[in-house]
Amino acid sequence: MNNNFVFINDAFFQAEHSAILIKDLSVQRGYGIFDFFKTVNSKPVFLDDHLDRFYYSAAQMHLQVGLSRSQLKEILAELMKRNNLPDSGIRITLTGGYSEDGYNLAEKPNLIITQNSFTSNQQAINKEIKLVTYNYQRQLSHIKTLDYLTAIWLQPYIKEHAAEDVLYHNNGALRECPRANFFLVTAANEVLTAGESILKGITRKNILNLVQTDILVAERAITLDDLATAKEAFITSTTKNIMPVTSIDGKNIGNGTIGPVTSKLQELLRQKASTATGI
Amino acid sequence: MNNNFVFINDAFFQAEHSAILIKDLSVQRGYGIFDFFKTVNSKPVFLDDHLDRFYYSAAQMHLQVGLSRSQLKEILAELMKRNNLPDSGIRITLTGGYSEDGYNLAEKPNLIITQNSFTSNQQAINKEIKLVTYNYQRQLSHIKTLDYLTAIWLQPYIKEHAAEDVLYHNNGALRECPRANFFLVTAANEVLTAGESILKGITRKNILNLVQTDILVAERAITLDDLATAKEAFITSTTKNIMPVTSIDGKNIGNGTIGPVTSKLQELLRQKASTATGI
Repeated sequence: MNNNFVFINDAFFQAEHSAILIKDLSVQRGYGIFDFFKTVNSKPVFLDDHLDRFYYSAAQMHLQVGLSRSQLKEILAELMKRNNLPDSGIRITLTGGYSEDGYNLAEKPNLIITQNSFTSNQQAINKEIKLVTYNYQRQLSHIKTLDYLTAIWLQPYIKEHAAEDVLYHNNGALRECPRANFFLVTAANEVLTAGESILKGITRKNILNLVQTDILVAERAITLDDLATAKEAFITSTTKNIMPVTSIDGKNIGNGTIGPVTSKLQELLRQKASTATGI
Repeated sequence: MNNNFVFINDAFFQAEHSAILIKDLSVQRGYGIFDFFKTVNSKPVFLDDHLDRFYYSAAQMHLQVGLSRSQLKEILAELMKRNNLPDSGIRITLTGGYSEDGYNLAEKPNLIITQNSFTSNQQAINKEIKLVTYNYQRQLSHIKTLDYLTAIWLQPYIKEHAAEDVLYHNNGALRECPRANFFLVTAANEVLTAGESILKGITRKNILNLVQTDILVAERAITLDDLATAKEAFITSTTKNIMPVTSIDGKNIGNGTIGPVTSKLQELLRQKASTATGI
């Protein structure tokens, strides 16, 4: 990884050897939250959306960030300056801290901020993806927690099904991918995404807010059955932007290539993201 | 904490400052498993049961322990010798390791073994407990993973309901506490515990195997409705042994004190545990 400095709690450290005591509640009990945004040409993209969600996740999980938003932004600016990685991903993690008994929350969480250069692979915008479905409802799904247990456990399952990622559904109700939101385009050209029991992604939010388009984009309950008639499908995330889904469970979506609605939304999102400013 | 040495991967370290790099998958994604056993008078209790489950959990989560059982036992013996803590809890943790991309499993997991002195509080056998119920099904419940996200998140809920721990149920089907199994005693003096979608505890297993008793102990589907007519209830774990439950959701179980069946099982389990031998 092309990184150099990280910030932990109150100071900057060399990333390569930066460590956390094993009594941290992430190591002991998988307890913590994070957020992740990208920088393009040294400008953070949708930073305030990500910080809104970071503070929301922290509050929901009873964790005190201990820094105001402006203090946090100062640290982010200093980290970006030290690392000088124009195109990067920045991750802000907040764990349950150094618990006295290995179970109850510590008085103070541990804050870890890392920055890594984006590989060209992560920036590829023309990639397409195949999904396989799996019946699973994430716990505390509205919060961006550290829990990716089932997601990582499913990696062999994904490979066995010749897919590249998994699409969760809850007894047929479509939800999300582990690190991306899911949209489908109906026969009537409506662009739909699940409205509940998911993590509400920042890219997803920005697509829902694309008012300058004549395409209907809406939150609505969608199901496994809807996949059979969908003309297009795509997933969205900070790293993937809008990535076309060409097949699900081995069956083509539409004609199995990127469709016109997906292409148009990609272009609109690109315009919106390009308005990113400095911290 | 009254600890001194820990073992990490291939060497012993001073516990106080022992650390793990932040790129470990437990810190990044909450991915890992563990097991926990106690020593009494320097003798591990039900050690092989715990090691059976540790290797099972590791295999289920696609983690290679990298040590044979006898190699692991040698390390445990050396740790106990160095620490000289006759009455202790030993925790063996295996994480997803140092992932290259912060998501996929590393080639090698990280192994962390810690030993802590038992406090007198943890050894108390006469404590009673009040529970509050909560509708939640643990993911991958048959595996002892690091995931205690909902459990720790629920701590304020537990306090608000004047309880000391939470009893999970899945739409009415009783499951378990976050760190203990749950049993109830019916009006017909049957001792019942859920048989599926739970972590099968070692204390639970030893109670189910108590053949020298005329009490019927069985795995069976039990529900929230069964609590109203239960004469007794208790929870079981390595640290709690058999701990009487005196109330659930603010309603007394039986007459709200420890009952005769619970007392008898406590005595039988004590006899069984006292047969523990060295490693």
